Amino acid sequence: MSTTINIAVIAGDGIGREVTVQAQKALDAAIAFEDASIAYRDFTLGADHYLETGELLHDATLEAIAESDAILFGAVGGVPGDPRLESVSIERSLLLRLRFAFDQYVNLRPARIHPGIGSVLGRDARADFVIVREGTEGAYSGSGGLVRGGTAQAIATEVSVNTAFGVERVLRYAFDLARTRDKRLTVVHKNNVLVHSGALWAQVQADVSAEYPDVTVDYLHVDAATIHLVQHPERFDVIVTDNLFGDILTDLAGAITGGIGLAASGNINPDDRFPSMFEPVHGSAPDIAGKQLADPTAAILSAAMLLDHVGLPVAGQRIRAAVDLDIEHRQDVGIRSTDQIGDSIAARIAS
Amino acid sequence: MSTTINIAVIAGDGIGREVTVQAQKALDAAIAFEDASIAYRDFTLGADHYLETGELLHDATLEAIAESDAILFGAVGGVPGDPRLESVSIERSLLLRLRFAFDQYVNLRPARIHPGIGSVLGRDARADFVIVREGTEGAYSGSGGLVRGGTAQAIATEVSVNTAFGVERVLRYAFDLARTRDKRLTVVHKNNVLVHSGALWAQVQADVSAEYPDVTVDYLHVDAATIHLVQHPERFDVIVTDNLFGDILTDLAGAITGGIGLAASGNINPDDRFPSMFEPVHGSAPDIAGKQLADPTAAILSAAMLLDHVGLPVAGQRIRAAVDLDIEHRQDVGIRSTDQIGDSIAARIAS
Ligand SMILES: CC(C)[C@H](C(=O)O)[C@@H](O)C(=O)O
Ligand SMILES: CC(C)[C@H](C(=O)O)[C@@H](O)C(=O)O
Repeated sequence: MSTTINIAVIAGDGIGREVTVQAQKALDAAIAFEDASIAYRDFTLGADHYLETGELLHDATLEAIAESDAILFGAVGGVPGDPRLESVSIERSLLLRLRFAFDQYVNLRPARIHPGIGSVLGRDARADFVIVREGTEGAYSGSGGLVRGGTAQAIATEVSVNTAFGVERVLRYAFDLARTRDKRLTVVHKNNVLVHSGALWAQVQADVSAEYPDVTVDYLHVDAATIHLVQHPERFDVIVTDNLFGDILTDLAGAITGGIGLAASGNINPDDRFPSMFEPVHGSAPDIAGKQLADPTAAILSAAMLLDHVGLPVAGQRIRAAVDLDIEHRQDVGIRSTDQIGDSIAARIAS
Repeated sequence: MSTTINIAVIAGDGIGREVTVQAQKALDAAIAFEDASIAYRDFTLGADHYLETGELLHDATLEAIAESDAILFGAVGGVPGDPRLESVSIERSLLLRLRFAFDQYVNLRPARIHPGIGSVLGRDARADFVIVREGTEGAYSGSGGLVRGGTAQAIATEVSVNTAFGVERVLRYAFDLARTRDKRLTVVHKNNVLVHSGALWAQVQADVSAEYPDVTVDYLHVDAATIHLVQHPERFDVIVTDNLFGDILTDLAGAITGGIGLAASGNINPDDRFPSMFEPVHGSAPDIAGKQLADPTAAILSAAMLLDHVGLPVAGQRIRAAVDLDIEHRQDVGIRSTDQIGDSIAARIAS
């Protein structure tokens, strides 16, 4: 009796659609070696879907997605400045709604400089770390408001909401992860200025780290962290930080480790009460959409994380090994289309 | 009759003290060519002063500083983890208090890759831009609180406060600055997630840009901005952003343009109702303090900005030209002490 992995596919908009097809090719090639099969269920969602149907994310759709074992997510977002999208936030109503509804409190974003590929930091730069970004609170809470909008007296507030519960569980995850790696954890915040939430993070850090004497912990302010990331990326093993700082640092980490075309991520619900969601860090990039210009590698590496998560780490590793080989040979093959990269990686997985 | 420039000097802690001496040498050398003189008044403040006297910043001290034409600031902050500093925030009570009390709403941070010095981005990288960081609101407001601190039910909020008044004046400053440069302005925010403050920034941007048809404006999310900064820093001319994003992006900008040892800044009150304050972007670096290891260049370049601001741009330019020459010849001279770098730049200014 073989297992079936039920995957909800939300390819979304723009290049999200192109790269997700390639991630599925990689999944299909990798699953062939396992005593398991994959059943996909497509959910058409995103800016285009909203413009056609008016749906952002119906409750019934959310419930149907909740039935899946995992979600493969492409990217969502329409053309910037489209007036029909002015009054909605696809990001908030769809992507962030999924992360919050499915309590995906660990946003896991590995960053590694692949030997075969250039880094903007030069040939000798080395980096192999993971950013654990909190995914369900902080400045992403949506709290706040705009008073007297459109007038010279307008005031807008934005409330970052942080709980001991939320900080503790993500810190524990990061400590546990550090234990499986080089046992070094860097907590990033801005506790010299954001004194309220900073004090909470510091308190929880002190409490939890006492339980992990084998893990070396340090702390950096977020501004200083950007300096270390570009000057000494090799110093990092696991970084844990809040939702907003994590958003910023993971794009920076992607940029210095071969570019955002390689940056994979998992929005994890470690309790497995809800499906976890795997998506490339990049967006829908409407400017290059439909032109076969997107690098599907980030989506393919996200699919590998999906396989790890559903208990098939050997299959995940198979994808990663194929990607490594593909990257190593990039110089030899010249510019390839999205499809060609996807096919080449799928072929390497199969062989 | 010659003018006297009254400068309040807050050298502060750690390397702040070492680099401020060098900035004063540069000021003295540059002012000698002008029909003007400088009167310094020292204010001993910072973590060390707090530990000795209990003063963070008395109202009377603030009033005395307010009498000056400009403030030369070094850096403040004690040794991280010092238990005697646990319950105070030197940053909030001193540095941020000065920025807020003196309504220094423009935090001006130029970033330039000097031809003579290496960038982590490689030999060919080019960058010459200015970040205009809002200095008096946003997440730096201090609003928020901690409820049930120390318990498993703790909740901490941090409120970013943004006003049309505050956003408009800093945007106008940035537009005016862009007009004196390459007429390209990039607004950075995160309006797809921080929808309340993001809507305010977008509204003010739309209103103000209509008055500056000659300036080309674009918008980037802060996460994407970090990617562009490391991959295409040459694309930027003037960047304007909020207090927290500006804090992060200016450290990153410093790191890619020769390091934080060169990054100067001005906390400007453009109305001249209060003194403006000039400080290196770096901190007090207690780990290397007193060892003559700090590069005083950032402090010296901040002093040049001070001269510009008090109406002596020729003197400011004299300092910058000397620094450029010093940087150009760095390879030839080997490692120098803080004093030696300061002396060498002062000598170039004088000659
Ligand atoms: C699209 C946006 C809402 C999202 C975020 O801010 O989390 C993206 O930048 C990311 O990092 O996944
Ligand atoms: C020391 C700290 C309060 C300060 C800030 O966050 O503004 C510093 O990082 C800076 O950039 O000047």
